Amino acid sequence: MKLISYSRNGIASCGLWVRDGVIDLPRRLGVRAQDLKTLLANDLLEQAAKYCDEAPDFALADVRLEPVIPNPRNILCVGLNYEDHRVETKRPKVDHPTIFMRVAESLQAHGAALLIPQESDQFDYEGELAVIIGKEGRRIPESHAWNHVAGVSCFNEGTVRDWQYHTHQFGPGKNFPRTGAFGPALITLDELPDDRVLTLETRVNGEVRQAATTSQMLFFIPKLIEYCSTFMTLYPGDVIVSGTPGGVGAKRQPPSWLSNGDVVEVEIGNVGTLRNVCQKELRNDV
Amino acid sequence: MKLISYSRNGIASCGLWVRDGVIDLPRRLGVRAQDLKTLLANDLLEQAAKYCDEAPDFALADVRLEPVIPNPRNILCVGLNYEDHRVETKRPKVDHPTIFMRVAESLQAHGAALLIPQESDQFDYEGELAVIIGKEGRRIPESHAWNHVAGVSCFNEGTVRDWQYHTHQFGPGKNFPRTGAFGPALITLDELPDDRVLTLETRVNGEVRQAATTSQMLFFIPKLIEYCSTFMTLYPGDVIVSGTPGGVGAKRQPPSWLSNGDVVEVEIGNVGTLRNVCQKELRNDV
Repeated sequence: MKLISYSRNGIASCGLWVRDGVIDLPRRLGVRAQDLKTLLANDLLEQAAKYCDEAPDFALADVRLEPVIPNPRNILCVGLNYEDHRVETKRPKVDHPTIFMRVAESLQAHGAALLIPQESDQFDYEGELAVIIGKEGRRIPESHAWNHVAGVSCFNEGTVRDWQYHTHQFGPGKNFPRTGAFGPALITLDELPDDRVLTLETRVNGEVRQAATTSQMLFFIPKLIEYCSTFMTLYPGDVIVSGTPGGVGAKRQPPSWLSNGDVVEVEIGNVGTLRNVCQKELRNDV
Repeated sequence: MKLISYSRNGIASCGLWVRDGVIDLPRRLGVRAQDLKTLLANDLLEQAAKYCDEAPDFALADVRLEPVIPNPRNILCVGLNYEDHRVETKRPKVDHPTIFMRVAESLQAHGAALLIPQESDQFDYEGELAVIIGKEGRRIPESHAWNHVAGVSCFNEGTVRDWQYHTHQFGPGKNFPRTGAFGPALITLDELPDDRVLTLETRVNGEVRQAATTSQMLFFIPKLIEYCSTFMTLYPGDVIVSGTPGGVGAKRQPPSWLSNGDVVEVEIGNVGTLRNVCQKELRNDV
């Protein structure tokens, strides 16, 4: 099942994405499904599935996609979770996942423009698998972790590199508005292969820059959920962005930054393709 | 003016703290002041001030204080913002503030117990001045920054040190539930000295552990607001926790950790005293 967040005539909603159409969920499930986060909090995924065979309410082309979860309470990002990226960034091996946070305002939808801020010309891509929490939990053991996952999506964890490296804390380079793309859809776990190993590819203007499989992660999804849920409660709609493989623009020789008009695609097997054009923010855009 | 967030008979509210009493604000200003964050967003500080001379609705002793802002959208913490703390932690000098984030669930009220999590015995204090944003802004110039501040409060940025140092990102050690004390009240700027230089003292069981003035900050409040508002929008109720001076428990010889029953006080001149007892979380508290 594929679920999307979208707006239509300025009204935010969520729905099922079937073939090229959209089945609106709030009109069937009411306020308990007023947005995707609320739908998950009310444990309505199975209920939603019952409408999959209905006739779509609109064509997909007639809605404006929003970030998969437009309003997550928490977005936890994992740094350095693929060995080749750890090596290219010259970071030491560590015994625990490297966790930092993004705010919801930094998100952008599939198909919308990623904003290169005025303050920097060092905007970079990071193709990643995003995991969306379905069920609240604290101190979730690794063995139960998948039970707390509603589904997955693609994420381009766009980064303003010079601001990331102002100090040793990554946050400032990771939170400029509309720099992180998240979509197009939440894909439920039944759509994934049994071993949940997925291919991931990031392309810039069609050229492959990152190619990996999630089997190369240093800390797998269940371990990430166990670790994060130890120091904070995970809530429905929370997002764990699981890290990027080697091949980021910053580590190419010479470094290759994204600029106005560049198209970045993050394609994850069984999950979909997230596509965004980059747009340089104008001085008077403020 | 002193404003507090509190609950009474299980109902969350906010009010003016006058002498030993509380003047409830939602019953005078309605839903536009249903909590302190909403009151600030609706620019109702001046309006609230008009009730200062009314008779209190309750005694302070009859309400349960909550964190000053129980539900901030963003809590931005500044690391290494006093030279003596930078030196004791052996961090290099940097040209920009070191920023990381806390979540609201990590907050605790004045007078309530700070929770030492099961997972660690390395719980430490950090006395800090918290700045509460009153007016939304992006790219706020240093020269206008104070116009965006509603007031200040005390903060004990309680830290689980071993989890802070699992990797180079601080977040996991800074976000365990109920580890960061915030209060007792929001003090408006008119209560501060003209130069806004404040003394700060942290005591453990009455023994002075940190003593500083905010004139020793490496990046002053206006610069912190300018920097943070460059990479993200600041909203009413957002909190900037401005860093701790030297003297943390981790850097004593031998290190001195907080344990069950220890009392930590953070006293800031003109602002007040934040007092909390530490409580070791029991295994079956989960």
